[in-house]
Amino acid sequence: MTRWPLPDPMQAALAQAQLAAKAGEVPVGAVVVRDGAVIASAHNAPRTLADPTAHAEILALRRAAEALGQERLEGCDLWVTLEPCAMCAGAIAHARIARLYYAAPDPKGGAVAHGARVFEYPQCHHRPEVYSGMGEEAAAGLLRGFFRGRR
Amino acid sequence: MTRWPLPDPMQAALAQAQLAAKAGEVPVGAVVVRDGAVIASAHNAPRTLADPTAHAEILALRRAAEALGQERLEGCDLWVTLEPCAMCAGAIAHARIARLYYAAPDPKGGAVAHGARVFEYPQCHHRPEVYSGMGEEAAAGLLRGFFRGRR
Repeated sequence: MTRWPLPDPMQAALAQAQLAAKAGEVPVGAVVVRDGAVIASAHNAPRTLADPTAHAEILALRRAAEALGQERLEGCDLWVTLEPCAMCAGAIAHARIARLYYAAPDPKGGAVAHGARVFEYPQCHHRPEVYSGMGEEAAAGLLRGFFRGRR
Repeated sequence: MTRWPLPDPMQAALAQAQLAAKAGEVPVGAVVVRDGAVIASAHNAPRTLADPTAHAEILALRRAAEALGQERLEGCDLWVTLEPCAMCAGAIAHARIARLYYAAPDPKGGAVAHGARVFEYPQCHHRPEVYSGMGEEAAAGLLRGFFRGRR
Protein backbone atom coordinates (compact mmCIF):
# COMPACT_ATOMS: atom_id res chain seq x y z
CA MET A 1 0.00 0.00 0.00
CA THR A 2 1.37 3.40 -0.92
CA ARG A 3 0.09 5.94 1.53
CA TRP A 4 1.74 8.86 -0.21
CA PRO A 5 4.37 9.29 -2.89
CA LEU A 6 7.88 9.78 -1.56
CA PRO A 7 8.94 13.42 -2.15
CA ASP A 8 11.33 13.87 -5.08
CA PRO A 9 14.25 15.12 -2.94
CA MET A 10 14.15 11.99 -0.77
CA GLN A 11 14.06 9.85 -3.90
CA ALA A 12 17.14 11.74 -5.09
CA ALA A 13 18.85 11.19 -1.73
CA LEU A 14 18.06 7.46 -1.91
CA ALA A 15 19.52 7.31 -5.42
CA GLN A 16 22.70 8.85 -3.99
CA ALA A 17 22.74 6.23 -1.22
CA GLN A 18 22.59 3.50 -3.89
CA LEU A 19 25.59 5.07 -5.63
CA ALA A 20 27.46 4.98 -2.30
CA ALA A 21 26.80 1.24 -1.94
CA LYS A 22 28.07 0.62 -5.47
CA ALA A 23 31.27 2.47 -4.53
CA GLY A 24 31.72 0.31 -1.42
CA GLU A 25 30.74 3.12 0.92
CA VAL A 26 28.09 2.98 3.66
CA PRO A 27 24.91 3.84 1.71
CA VAL A 28 23.82 7.28 2.85
CA GLY A 29 22.80 10.00 0.42
CA ALA A 30 21.86 13.67 0.74
CA VAL A 31 20.62 16.55 -1.38
CA VAL A 32 20.23 20.28 -0.75
CA VAL A 33 17.09 21.91 -2.10
CA ARG A 34 16.46 25.59 -2.72
CA ASP A 35 13.21 26.99 -4.14
CA GLY A 36 12.10 23.46 -5.02
CA ALA A 37 15.22 22.58 -6.99
CA VAL A 38 18.10 20.28 -6.02
CA ILE A 39 21.25 22.44 -6.00
CA ALA A 40 23.68 19.83 -4.61
CA SER A 41 23.79 16.03 -4.23
CA ALA A 42 26.29 13.75 -2.53
CA HIS A 43 26.82 10.34 -1.05
CA ASN A 44 28.96 9.08 1.76
CA ALA A 45 32.57 8.80 0.53
CA PRO A 46 35.16 8.85 3.36
CA ARG A 47 37.08 5.86 2.01
CA THR A 48 37.03 6.92 -1.62
CA LEU A 49 38.12 10.47 -0.78
CA ALA A 50 40.39 9.55 2.19
CA ASP A 51 38.50 12.18 4.18
CA PRO A 52 37.03 11.46 7.63
CA THR A 53 34.56 14.33 7.18
CA ALA A 54 33.17 13.10 3.84
CA HIS A 55 29.69 12.15 5.01
CA ALA A 56 26.89 12.72 2.50
CA GLU A 57 25.58 15.75 4.42
CA ILE A 58 28.97 17.48 4.67
CA LEU A 59 29.68 17.01 0.97
CA ALA A 60 26.19 18.19 -0.03
CA LEU A 61 26.43 21.27 2.19
CA ARG A 62 29.89 22.13 0.85
CA ARG A 63 28.77 21.71 -2.75
CA ALA A 64 25.65 23.83 -2.18
CA ALA A 65 27.71 26.59 -0.55
CA GLU A 66 30.17 26.46 -3.43
CA ALA A 67 27.31 26.67 -5.95
CA LEU A 68 25.86 29.70 -4.18
CA GLY A 69 29.23 31.28 -3.40
CA GLN A 70 28.37 31.81 0.25
CA GLU A 71 28.97 30.01 3.53
CA ARG A 72 25.35 30.21 4.70
CA LEU A 73 22.48 28.33 3.09
CA GLU A 74 19.54 30.29 4.46
CA GLY A 75 16.25 29.14 2.95
CA CYS A 76 17.75 25.81 1.85
CA ASP A 77 16.58 22.38 2.99
CA LEU A 78 18.68 19.25 3.49
CA TRP A 79 17.25 15.82 2.69
CA VAL A 80 19.27 12.85 3.91
CA THR A 81 18.59 9.12 4.14
CA LEU A 82 19.92 8.67 7.71
CA GLU A 83 19.73 10.65 10.94
CA PRO A 84 22.78 12.96 10.99
CA CYS A 85 25.69 12.35 13.38
CA ALA A 86 27.08 15.08 15.66
CA MET A 87 29.51 16.30 12.99
CA CYS A 88 26.79 16.65 10.38
CA ALA A 89 24.21 18.13 12.77
CA GLY A 90 26.76 20.78 13.71
CA ALA A 91 27.47 21.52 10.05
CA ILE A 92 23.72 21.80 9.33
CA ALA A 93 23.49 24.41 12.09
CA HIS A 94 26.53 26.34 10.84
CA ALA A 95 25.04 26.36 7.33
CA ARG A 96 21.73 27.74 8.66
CA ILE A 97 19.71 25.02 6.90
CA ALA A 98 16.00 25.86 7.24
CA ARG A 99 14.52 22.35 7.24
CA LEU A 100 16.13 18.95 7.80
CA TYR A 101 14.36 15.87 6.45
CA TYR A 102 15.89 12.50 7.33
CA ALA A 103 14.57 9.05 6.48
CA ALA A 104 15.87 6.43 8.92
CA PRO A 105 16.68 7.00 12.60
CA ASP A 106 20.21 6.05 13.73
CA PRO A 107 20.17 5.00 17.39
CA LYS A 108 23.83 3.89 17.15
CA GLY A 109 25.35 7.02 15.62
CA GLY A 110 22.70 9.72 15.37
CA ALA A 111 22.91 13.02 17.21
CA VAL A 112 19.56 14.65 16.39
CA ALA A 113 17.02 12.44 18.18
CA HIS A 114 19.66 10.31 19.91
CA GLY A 115 22.88 10.75 21.86
CA ALA A 116 24.32 14.26 21.88
CA ARG A 117 21.08 15.79 20.47
CA VAL A 118 23.14 18.64 19.10
CA PHE A 119 20.23 20.95 18.19
CA GLU A 120 18.87 20.97 21.74
CA TYR A 121 21.69 22.95 23.36
CA PRO A 122 22.09 26.73 23.55
CA GLN A 123 25.65 26.25 22.15
CA CYS A 124 23.91 25.36 18.87
CA HIS A 125 23.28 28.75 17.28
CA HIS A 126 20.68 27.66 14.71
CA ARG A 127 18.06 24.92 14.82
CA PRO A 128 16.45 23.69 11.61
CA GLU A 129 12.90 22.41 11.57
CA VAL A 130 13.28 18.60 11.66
CA TYR A 131 11.08 16.04 9.89
CA SER A 132 11.82 12.32 9.87
CA GLY A 133 10.50 8.98 8.67
CA MET A 134 9.62 9.50 5.01
CA GLY A 135 11.57 6.91 3.05
CA GLU A 136 12.67 5.16 6.23
CA GLU A 137 12.05 1.61 4.99
CA ALA A 138 13.95 2.13 1.74
CA ALA A 139 16.86 3.89 3.48
CA ALA A 140 17.15 1.31 6.26
CA GLY A 141 16.82 -1.51 3.71
CA LEU A 142 19.82 -0.18 1.76
CA LEU A 143 21.91 -0.09 4.95
CA ARG A 144 20.86 -3.58 6.02
CA GLY A 145 21.64 -5.00 2.59
CA PHE A 146 25.04 -3.31 2.56
CA PHE A 147 26.15 -4.60 5.95
CA ARG A 148 24.70 -8.07 5.29
CA GLY A 149 26.74 -8.25 2.11
CA ARG A 150 29.96 -7.38 3.95
CA ARG A 151 29.69 -9.98 6.69
CA MET B 1 55.92 34.66 34.93
CA THR B 2 56.37 31.78 32.55
CA ARG B 3 55.52 28.57 34.30
CA TRP B 4 56.43 26.40 31.35
CA PRO B 5 57.17 26.94 27.68
CA LEU B 6 54.13 26.58 25.42
CA PRO B 7 54.48 23.35 23.38
CA ASP B 8 55.52 23.94 19.77
CA PRO B 9 52.29 22.56 18.25
CA MET B 10 50.18 25.04 20.24
CA GLN B 11 52.49 27.85 19.14
CA ALA B 12 51.93 26.71 15.55
CA ALA B 13 48.15 26.64 16.12
CA LEU B 14 48.30 30.18 17.56
CA ALA B 15 50.27 31.35 14.52
CA GLN B 16 47.48 29.93 12.34
CA ALA B 17 44.89 31.79 14.43
CA GLN B 18 46.80 35.03 13.76
CA LEU B 19 46.67 34.31 10.03
CA ALA B 20 42.90 33.85 10.33
CA ALA B 21 42.51 37.27 11.95
CA LYS B 22 44.57 38.88 9.18
CA ALA B 23 42.18 37.28 6.66
CA GLY B 24 39.14 38.67 8.48
CA GLU B 25 38.18 35.27 9.86
CA VAL B 26 37.47 34.43 13.50
CA PRO B 27 40.97 33.66 14.83
CA VAL B 28 41.11 29.95 15.50
CA GLY B 29 44.00 27.77 14.35
CA ALA B 30 44.75 24.06 14.41
CA VAL B 31 47.53 21.63 13.58
CA VAL B 32 47.71 17.84 13.33
CA VAL B 33 50.82 16.20 14.76
CA ARG B 34 52.16 12.72 14.07
CA ASP B 35 55.35 11.31 15.58
CA GLY B 36 56.25 14.76 16.87
CA ALA B 37 55.94 16.49 13.48
CA VAL B 38 53.21 18.83 12.23
CA ILE B 39 51.65 17.15 9.18
CA ALA B 40 48.80 19.63 8.59
CA SER B 41 47.95 23.20 9.60
CA ALA B 42 44.85 25.31 9.05
CA HIS B 43 42.93 28.30 10.23
CA ASN B 44 39.27 29.12 10.31
CA ALA B 45 38.15 30.15 6.80
CA PRO B 46 34.39 29.74 6.20
CA ARG B 47 34.00 33.19 4.64
CA THR B 48 37.10 33.03 2.48
CA LEU B 49 36.22 29.55 1.20
CA ALA B 50 32.40 30.01 1.18
CA ASP B 51 32.24 26.76 3.15
CA PRO B 52 30.20 26.45 6.36
CA THR B 53 32.34 23.47 7.42
CA ALA B 54 35.67 25.29 7.05
CA HIS B 55 36.61 25.47 10.71
CA ALA B 56 40.32 25.18 11.52
CA GLU B 57 39.90 21.65 12.88
CA ILE B 58 37.97 20.33 9.86
CA LEU B 59 40.49 21.76 7.40
CA ALA B 60 43.46 20.44 9.40
CA LEU B 61 41.92 16.96 9.66
CA ARG B 62 41.12 16.88 5.95
CA ARG B 63 44.62 18.02 5.01
CA ALA B 64 46.22 15.45 7.33
CA ALA B 65 44.06 12.67 5.88
CA GLU B 66 44.95 13.78 2.37
CA ALA B 67 48.67 13.84 3.28
CA LEU B 68 48.47 10.30 4.68
CA GLY B 69 46.09 9.02 1.99
CA GLN B 70 43.70 7.52 4.53
CA GLU B 71 40.48 8.55 6.24
CA ARG B 72 41.63 7.62 9.75
CA LEU B 73 44.34 9.45 11.65
CA GLU B 74 45.17 6.86 14.31
CA GLY B 75 48.13 7.93 16.41
CA CYS B 76 47.75 11.57 15.41
CA ASP B 77 47.07 14.46 17.80
CA LEU B 78 45.06 17.62 17.12
CA TRP B 79 46.10 20.92 18.68
CA VAL B 80 43.57 23.76 18.40
CA THR B 81 43.30 27.19 19.98
CA LEU B 82 39.59 26.94 20.92
CA GLU B 83 37.34 24.22 22.34
CA PRO B 84 35.84 22.39 19.34
CA CYS B 85 32.17 22.77 18.41
CA ALA B 86 29.87 19.77 17.85
CA MET B 87 30.78 19.54 14.16
CA CYS B 88 34.51 19.50 14.88
CA ALA B 89 34.24 17.17 17.89
CA GLY B 90 32.34 14.72 15.69
CA ALA B 91 34.99 14.97 12.99
CA ILE B 92 37.75 14.39 15.56
CA ALA B 93 35.98 11.19 16.61
CA HIS B 94 35.50 10.01 13.01
CA ALA B 95 39.20 10.66 12.34
CA ARG B 96 40.20 8.59 15.39
CA ILE B 97 42.43 11.37 16.73
CA ALA B 98 44.41 10.01 19.71
CA ARG B 99 44.81 13.20 21.76
CA LEU B 100 43.01 16.55 21.57
CA TYR B 101 44.72 19.61 23.01
CA TYR B 102 42.70 22.83 23.06
CA ALA B 103 43.71 26.18 24.50
CA ALA B 104 40.65 28.30 25.38
CA PRO B 105 37.29 26.97 26.57
CA ASP B 106 34.23 28.05 24.55
CA PRO B 107 31.16 28.18 26.80
CA LYS B 108 29.11 29.77 23.97
CA GLY B 109 29.86 27.32 21.17
CA GLY B 110 31.95 24.45 22.54
CA ALA B 111 30.75 20.86 22.56
CA VAL B 112 33.53 19.07 24.43
CA ALA B 113 33.27 20.44 27.99
CA HIS B 114 30.08 22.40 27.28
CA GLY B 115 26.71 21.92 25.61
CA ALA B 116 26.31 18.72 23.62
CA ARG B 117 29.51 17.19 25.11
CA VAL B 118 29.81 15.02 22.03
CA PHE B 119 32.49 12.66 23.35
CA GLU B 120 30.41 11.61 26.36
CA TYR B 121 27.72 9.66 24.46
CA PRO B 122 27.83 6.03 23.32
CA GLN B 123 26.85 7.26 19.82
CA CYS B 124 30.38 8.71 19.67
CA HIS B 125 32.46 5.73 18.52
CA HIS B 126 35.89 7.08 19.51
CA ARG B 127 36.97 9.35 22.33
CA PRO B 128 40.33 11.10 22.21
CA GLU B 129 42.25 11.91 25.38
CA VAL B 130 41.47 15.58 26.03
CA TYR B 131 43.84 18.20 27.48
CA SER B 132 42.94 21.87 27.75
CA GLY B 133 44.26 25.19 29.00
CA MET B 134 47.80 25.47 27.61
CA GLY B 135 47.94 28.69 25.61
CA GLU B 136 44.51 29.74 26.85
CA GLU B 137 45.44 33.37 27.53
CA ALA B 138 47.01 33.90 24.13
CA ALA B 139 44.17 32.16 22.28
CA ALA B 140 41.42 34.01 24.15
CA GLY B 141 43.30 37.30 23.73
CA LEU B 142 43.34 36.88 19.94
CA LEU B 143 39.58 36.27 19.93
CA ARG B 144 38.86 39.25 22.22
CA GLY B 145 40.99 41.53 20.08
CA PHE B 146 39.29 40.35 16.90
CA PHE B 147 35.74 40.91 18.12
CA ARG B 148 36.66 44.22 19.79
CA GLY B 149 38.02 45.43 16.46
CA ARG B 150 34.79 44.54 14.66
CA ARG B 151 32.41 46.34 16.98
